[in-house]
Amino acid sequence: MDKIVTISRQYGSGGREIGKNIAEHFGIPFYDNELICRAAKESGYAEAAFHNAESKATNSLLYSIAMGMSAYGSQEAGFSHLSLDDRIYLAQSDVIKKCAEEGPCVIVGRCADYILKDRTDVIHFFICADMDFRKERAIRIDGVDADNAEDIVIKKDKRRANYYNYHSGEKWGMASNYHMCLNSGAIGIEAATKLFVDYLERL
Amino acid sequence: MDKIVTISRQYGSGGREIGKNIAEHFGIPFYDNELICRAAKESGYAEAAFHNAESKATNSLLYSIAMGMSAYGSQEAGFSHLSLDDRIYLAQSDVIKKCAEEGPCVIVGRCADYILKDRTDVIHFFICADMDFRKERAIRIDGVDADNAEDIVIKKDKRRANYYNYHSGEKWGMASNYHMCLNSGAIGIEAATKLFVDYLERL
Repeated sequence: MDKIVTISRQYGSGGREIGKNIAEHFGIPFYDNELICRAAKESGYAEAAFHNAESKATNSLLYSIAMGMSAYGSQEAGFSHLSLDDRIYLAQSDVIKKCAEEGPCVIVGRCADYILKDRTDVIHFFICADMDFRKERAIRIDGVDADNAEDIVIKKDKRRANYYNYHSGEKWGMASNYHMCLNSGAIGIEAATKLFVDYLERL
Repeated sequence: MDKIVTISRQYGSGGREIGKNIAEHFGIPFYDNELICRAAKESGYAEAAFHNAESKATNSLLYSIAMGMSAYGSQEAGFSHLSLDDRIYLAQSDVIKKCAEEGPCVIVGRCADYILKDRTDVIHFFICADMDFRKERAIRIDGVDADNAEDIVIKKDKRRANYYNYHSGEKWGMASNYHMCLNSGAIGIEAATKLFVDYLERL
């Protein structure tokens, strides 16, 4: 399997676990949300990414957003007015691109599908599940308070959707942005893993 | 395989062909768009559905839409003010429900996923594809004029999205409304069929 795999997922759908399973099946690196955030922060990429971005950003949506619409930026020329959020996004994008350049891997979250959309060697998966399934996992695995679980699941997804929609200009969770989408709640984590693996093996 | 399968699809994605393949694989009936429209028209369901709907429609979104928001209806009480479009929708819904009651089958289009959403024995698939793939099929299979193919593909999908969004109150093509979604252009019609069949055989 010579592809890079990105996984986007609703909170509580088991997307991270499925991603890890896929990476283990093929013996390739697995980069989750947390790891990418930490790498962007620790490596000092935030500053570097910010400067490197200058030459390539003028045609990007991000540029337009940052220059015209960012809640934190201003409309003055120059990238010193990119918001902190936008700088972090650029830093994380750089980490994600570097991961992809190193070869086949599985990357979860952080708009990885959008960031790598121009590469032809990337396969994009989306994982969703029904509320009951997601609530149960949020309580059992993340230790979410049972009384507020539904509220937390909804808010987490709202944040993911906002983050994605803001940076990509696309709508989070539209099937047409992915190669394959599965409801993990309906079929289970194990079967979902097998179906995704099957997809990758058919390529 | 004891399930009813609904297939929603972007125009030109080969959804109808994949649906037919799935039905043939399992030896179950296949109901396409055209067949459902014809059945609703020929059987005189339009009138019957309209009368039958009266008792069950008061809590439905359709009722609210028809009573308050329809471009064709009025706000006066009574179902004689349902638009022709809404009556046809109700008639087609009746045909779809009857198909499902008869046992396992594959149903393509006409909001079948939404109409059968309360049945637990129904599996919902969505099929999309990239523009080039869809244009090529539109030209080759439907005889669409090559110069206008992209425009026609876009318009056909806009119509499907509007129809779905209007009747269901949901957003057409959101992965979370389906059990499994595939980009048929990326993997091909044959492999997509096999992956869907594989999904159904794992249940």
